[in-house]
Amino acid sequence: MSGDRRRFENGLNEANTEPLADFDSGFDTQLGFAVRAHCAPLLGLPEHAEPQSYWERRSELTEDQLARVFLPAAGVSDWLVDTGLPGEIAGLPEMAQASGGGVGEIVRLEQLAEQAAAAPGDYADAFRRILHERSATAVATKTVLAYRGGFDGDLSEPDPRDVAEAAARWRDGGGVRLTDRVLLRFGVHEALRLGKPLQFHVGLGDRDCDLHRTNPMLLLDFLRQSGSTPVVLLHCYPYEREAGYLAQAFNNVYLDVGLSINHLGARAEAFIGRSLELAPFRKILYSSDAFGPAELHYLGSLLWRAGIAAVLTGFVARDQWSEADAIRVVDLIARDNALRLYGL
Amino acid sequence: MSGDRRRFENGLNEANTEPLADFDSGFDTQLGFAVRAHCAPLLGLPEHAEPQSYWERRSELTEDQLARVFLPAAGVSDWLVDTGLPGEIAGLPEMAQASGGGVGEIVRLEQLAEQAAAAPGDYADAFRRILHERSATAVATKTVLAYRGGFDGDLSEPDPRDVAEAAARWRDGGGVRLTDRVLLRFGVHEALRLGKPLQFHVGLGDRDCDLHRTNPMLLLDFLRQSGSTPVVLLHCYPYEREAGYLAQAFNNVYLDVGLSINHLGARAEAFIGRSLELAPFRKILYSSDAFGPAELHYLGSLLWRAGIAAVLTGFVARDQWSEADAIRVVDLIARDNALRLYGL
Amino acid sequence: MSGDRRRFENGLNEANTEPLADFDSGFDTQLGFAVRAHCAPLLGLPEHAEPQSYWERRSELTEDQLARVFLPAAGVSDWLVDTGLPGEIAGLPEMAQASGGGVGEIVRLEQLAEQAAAAPGDYADAFRRILHERSATAVATKTVLAYRGGFDGDLSEPDPRDVAEAAARWRDGGGVRLTDRVLLRFGVHEALRLGKPLQFHVGLGDRDCDLHRTNPMLLLDFLRQSGSTPVVLLHCYPYEREAGYLAQAFNNVYLDVGLSINHLGARAEAFIGRSLELAPFRKILYSSDAFGPAELHYLGSLLWRAGIAAVLTGFVARDQWSEADAIRVVDLIARDNALRLYGL
Repeated sequence: MSGDRRRFENGLNEANTEPLADFDSGFDTQLGFAVRAHCAPLLGLPEHAEPQSYWERRSELTEDQLARVFLPAAGVSDWLVDTGLPGEIAGLPEMAQASGGGVGEIVRLEQLAEQAAAAPGDYADAFRRILHERSATAVATKTVLAYRGGFDGDLSEPDPRDVAEAAARWRDGGGVRLTDRVLLRFGVHEALRLGKPLQFHVGLGDRDCDLHRTNPMLLLDFLRQSGSTPVVLLHCYPYEREAGYLAQAFNNVYLDVGLSINHLGARAEAFIGRSLELAPFRKILYSSDAFGPAELHYLGSLLWRAGIAAVLTGFVARDQWSEADAIRVVDLIARDNALRLYGL
Repeated sequence: MSGDRRRFENGLNEANTEPLADFDSGFDTQLGFAVRAHCAPLLGLPEHAEPQSYWERRSELTEDQLARVFLPAAGVSDWLVDTGLPGEIAGLPEMAQASGGGVGEIVRLEQLAEQAAAAPGDYADAFRRILHERSATAVATKTVLAYRGGFDGDLSEPDPRDVAEAAARWRDGGGVRLTDRVLLRFGVHEALRLGKPLQFHVGLGDRDCDLHRTNPMLLLDFLRQSGSTPVVLLHCYPYEREAGYLAQAFNNVYLDVGLSINHLGARAEAFIGRSLELAPFRKILYSSDAFGPAELHYLGSLLWRAGIAAVLTGFVARDQWSEADAIRVVDLIARDNALRLYGL
Repeated sequence: MSGDRRRFENGLNEANTEPLADFDSGFDTQLGFAVRAHCAPLLGLPEHAEPQSYWERRSELTEDQLARVFLPAAGVSDWLVDTGLPGEIAGLPEMAQASGGGVGEIVRLEQLAEQAAAAPGDYADAFRRILHERSATAVATKTVLAYRGGFDGDLSEPDPRDVAEAAARWRDGGGVRLTDRVLLRFGVHEALRLGKPLQFHVGLGDRDCDLHRTNPMLLLDFLRQSGSTPVVLLHCYPYEREAGYLAQAFNNVYLDVGLSINHLGARAEAFIGRSLELAPFRKILYSSDAFGPAELHYLGSLLWRAGIAAVLTGFVARDQWSEADAIRVVDLIARDNALRLYGL
């Protein structure tokens, strides 16, 4: 198998941090089946095309060409993009051009922290300055605290002296990959103070995070102190029911199960059903939360549309919901809640 | 929006302890949709009536009139009522009159503890005396330990000297809202000794409880020592599968998922399915466990009937169960198990 | 009720370690209903035969006759049998004869440890020797660490001196029922070194295990150090989604939800659906994992076949999977993955 194909198949696995084993294939997963079922026709292939055919056809296109196939097909009006990932990621202008949609930025707090570590002068001042500069045009902030120790333990605002000491230690160590709890807490509380929606990576991610330490219930004490700044719980698998509870329990908590949907493929419908339990309908948000292959931007949209249609059609068929209500809830989740929350 | 309507909408949210945010509406939840779908016709409105229409029609009726609409419609023969809630709650005679059904009382241990704190003499003696007096005509006791520190940690019977010391401290502090672990443990073990069914609030409740500290698996050590006194696990969302396991693992453990069903609305069916996994069918109990708007007494019944009918019809359609078995299991859960357990 | 019937009904309950209460019946469970629905016809009775009829007919047959009815009907080509259970269990030759299939052995590490404790000389040497002897013809090793303290806490390889000390202590105490953490860890790491698939009991089991301490997420640190030796997570209820995540996150982790399926009866379909979320399809394995009544060997197969057929038919009906893919995945889970993993 070519290195390119191997890389593509690895991109269909979210949780593993190593290359897939030789006996395995990224195509033999719910996501792999979804790629073949739904993306193949956009490349001129039959539904459920064989992996080899899919790979060959895909290889004929550049990444840019793939983006121009899959992004517009997603039917997304506004792409809100986390720009804090390492490595080569399409920038906002490229995203806008390829998709034909609007774009907005989500700034990652841990990236800002690294920039503050590299800046001269007081760390806390530098962080605040960079946060305000970077967030001036951003729609939200985001934390990957889930990957830097998880949610259990103290998440209160740290003492300024402790911040200064921790920053000095971190800078002495080179200021790379923030894992210091004090500085992570500092960043999150500064983001709360900023008032823009603050996103938390929750649950499903790669195995660098301890999944069970990202159970959103461990954020309870933090949420009790979080005031009115919106807190958005992202992904959430397998804790989507706990996250939905929190969205009901706190006026400022929101549920966005993007990313999980892609990786669940044919099971996305069941997952979407579980995400429609306790969370109030004005507190649920759609996202594709795609990372990696261009296909995921399209699949996130397609699987969500198909899944929520199936779930709500079931509610209507059993006369639990009216059709008009179902349509309205789709509009809320797909668009209206995001417009209100992110001020688009 | 009127204060009355705001109060009604808040009553459709279980988990939040604050008034709903201005942008939100209690009607835009599974429970809100269920109210409009199923309660509107009982008020002479079409199914899925608009919130404003529903509210206007509802406002024309007094609470007593609403109770006389919704309680008899629930088709419940015996109402077992937790009388330990603070605030103005309908008493047992009012309940009997409005519903046309029989009533039984469930006494809340933490309320008895407050009465014992206010009584003269030895606390333990006072608690035991009040417990025996109050429970003489009651069908069960109940603990809200879930709200007073949760289930993790020691739940063994405390030493009498420790009880006396803790009681003195609590009385000195005014004897309000019991959170002392020693006295909570004392109350629960006295209730075990009494032998009447002992109910535990488990899972779903407002955010004053740490939901993850109410995972019923944390009761394992307690249950291993609990002897033959029946222990009923109430509500249980999102731990209904763990609770079902415990109902299989212990002869004296029962599962009652009331309350959760109301708040899940159209998703109650999926939840009822999950509650029918490991729990033996003679250990599962129906309840509406309504609190707040009169509608919930009716909805608890309607959603359970619709949900279990759909789930069991599915079992029968796939030839996993016979129709006669399905009918018998409905009778067990709806009635026969409660008659046996509570001695009605 | 006869002692024999009582014993049979107790065998339909997995979690309880005591005899069922007088008011209860093992027939009034999902498994009991499945026995009546699916096993009755093999005994010449109508589907859903009454418990008394079923019991009477069953009583006419010896255990050996029952095995010759139910084992071949399971349609299983290879029976991989854990031989480490206490008490009278059918041996491998009897299994082969009754079923008409091939057999393979799974050796239980904690049983080997007891043999090493009883052997002369150095404990570690004895354990290694016995492990190599016993596993020479075995297909896998298995640990019931879940029942001996669970997964939380240190699972790293212990220091040889600590092993020697712990072994001396255990031998002094009689060398019965291993619960010493150091020796448990030692056994598991020796099994890793052996390189044959290592099975972990996870989740559902009797109440001697603390179910929440068998959440497979607690194995994360262990799995991060486990190298390339295959680790198979068995049973997994109610943690099947967490286990599926681990099967995606680690090249050497596999998912086998046998045993749970039997006890879920008509709900096995929903459970099988949940087990088909994140786990790659080449990492999922079928087993009946029957223990106790001969019926369970057949039911494990029947319920899995019916459940996966229903789930995958749903995927195909909604055009998420092709029919050819569905057939291929059934073959992977039912057979091909096991052939590759266990080298059958």
